[in-house]
Amino acid sequence: MEIELDDRWSIGGRPHGGYLLREAVRPALTEQHPDPLVVSAHFLRSPDPGTAQLQVETLRVGRRVSQLRTRVVQHGETVLETQVTTTALSADAEPHWTRSEPPSLLPVEDALRAPHEPVPGFRVGHLEFVDSRYDPEHARLGTPHLVPGELQAWLRMADGPTTPLDLLVLADALQPTAAGLGVPGWFPTLELTVYVRAIPADGWLVGRHRTQELVDGWFDEDCELWDSRGRLVCQARQLAGYRL
Amino acid sequence: MEIELDDRWSIGGRPHGGYLLREAVRPALTEQHPDPLVVSAHFLRSPDPGTAQLQVETLRVGRRVSQLRTRVVQHGETVLETQVTTTALSADAEPHWTRSEPPSLLPVEDALRAPHEPVPGFRVGHLEFVDSRYDPEHARLGTPHLVPGELQAWLRMADGPTTPLDLLVLADALQPTAAGLGVPGWFPTLELTVYVRAIPADGWLVGRHRTQELVDGWFDEDCELWDSRGRLVCQARQLAGYRL
Repeated sequence: MEIELDDRWSIGGRPHGGYLLREAVRPALTEQHPDPLVVSAHFLRSPDPGTAQLQVETLRVGRRVSQLRTRVVQHGETVLETQVTTTALSADAEPHWTRSEPPSLLPVEDALRAPHEPVPGFRVGHLEFVDSRYDPEHARLGTPHLVPGELQAWLRMADGPTTPLDLLVLADALQPTAAGLGVPGWFPTLELTVYVRAIPADGWLVGRHRTQELVDGWFDEDCELWDSRGRLVCQARQLAGYRL
Repeated sequence: MEIELDDRWSIGGRPHGGYLLREAVRPALTEQHPDPLVVSAHFLRSPDPGTAQLQVETLRVGRRVSQLRTRVVQHGETVLETQVTTTALSADAEPHWTRSEPPSLLPVEDALRAPHEPVPGFRVGHLEFVDSRYDPEHARLGTPHLVPGELQAWLRMADGPTTPLDLLVLADALQPTAAGLGVPGWFPTLELTVYVRAIPADGWLVGRHRTQELVDGWFDEDCELWDSRGRLVCQARQLAGYRL
């Protein structure tokens, strides 16, 4: 099938990774299993906005989960390869055990929205569709963070409730931690795995990025998202590149 | 091509997940890119020991990394699907930035090796090939841990140095955290992603498992591994099932 990569979601002309992932996973969802549970994605090439081909292969349909592969192809080359496990998330599952707690942030009214055109003529397209709000002291990309390798923000979809599928976007929507560590430039995602743990309640989510190490040109970045009820709704991790 | 799943690696008759993963990734390595950098795997069915078919598809060969898919098939059904990014790890890369530190454990001489036949007639096969040593107070599967949802141990391959490829085994070799939280039974891995951050130095590694939440039948388990020089060599995360 064909999918359309909307140019408005691009960063410097290239589609946002989380957006690309969401569009690559959307056709894997079914009536029986309408929610992503686990998505792992390897990014091969940065596509152009516009038309791309999406291939979906169903590997197993079980009672509880289904397992699929999807592939985005453009100009005859694989752009993105995903593995997807889908399920029907329980609307009101209570954890059997948890130690997950959202960090406390300054009130959302006092936080500053990250702009989608930080420099005239340079679009960070996903920030038009994702409303992310930072402590004013740490809002500017490249500002050192309070805890090195760590940052947090309020976030939600700008135009309506956040669905489980939208969590694939939000898992890649906050600032890269490496920018706060004085590393310049562009941080291409090599791999991103997302676990959706619950259906988000309405309202603002809290997101936190944390990094353990930058070594040999690669850094890890964990993303945790909690909903307005304080529940862990998403855990994600990516490996991305950096250059000194 | 065909691969052989060695029965001696089985747990209750089923091949160990990390072992299965290692054998599924081994043929993806090349002279140019001899090390796994990122491996994500979705487990579909538990195979039998014995012969299985392995399909390898190369998606992209770059200067710095190659990206591939592999699939294990047995009796005509997909057992395991992987995405693999390979590279040539630098032998002596020093982190540009890190906050990763191994936990301190009791001396390895005072630790107790986890047995590969904990109950007569029940084999936990990988524990013959992985030497893992625990604080005697926490060595027995199902004992509550010092920090709930967390456990740590010394570990290494029993029969020689630990290679980067072996880290795929070690990332799935410690006890499941859920067992220490009073959850009974069998914890099938649904998905496992492994980042190899460095080539392990010779000697004992330190491993730590940490879980954030058990909800709706699934729990996450992070695994970090540090080598004898205290360097982070592996970060892994899995989503596994539980039943109350």
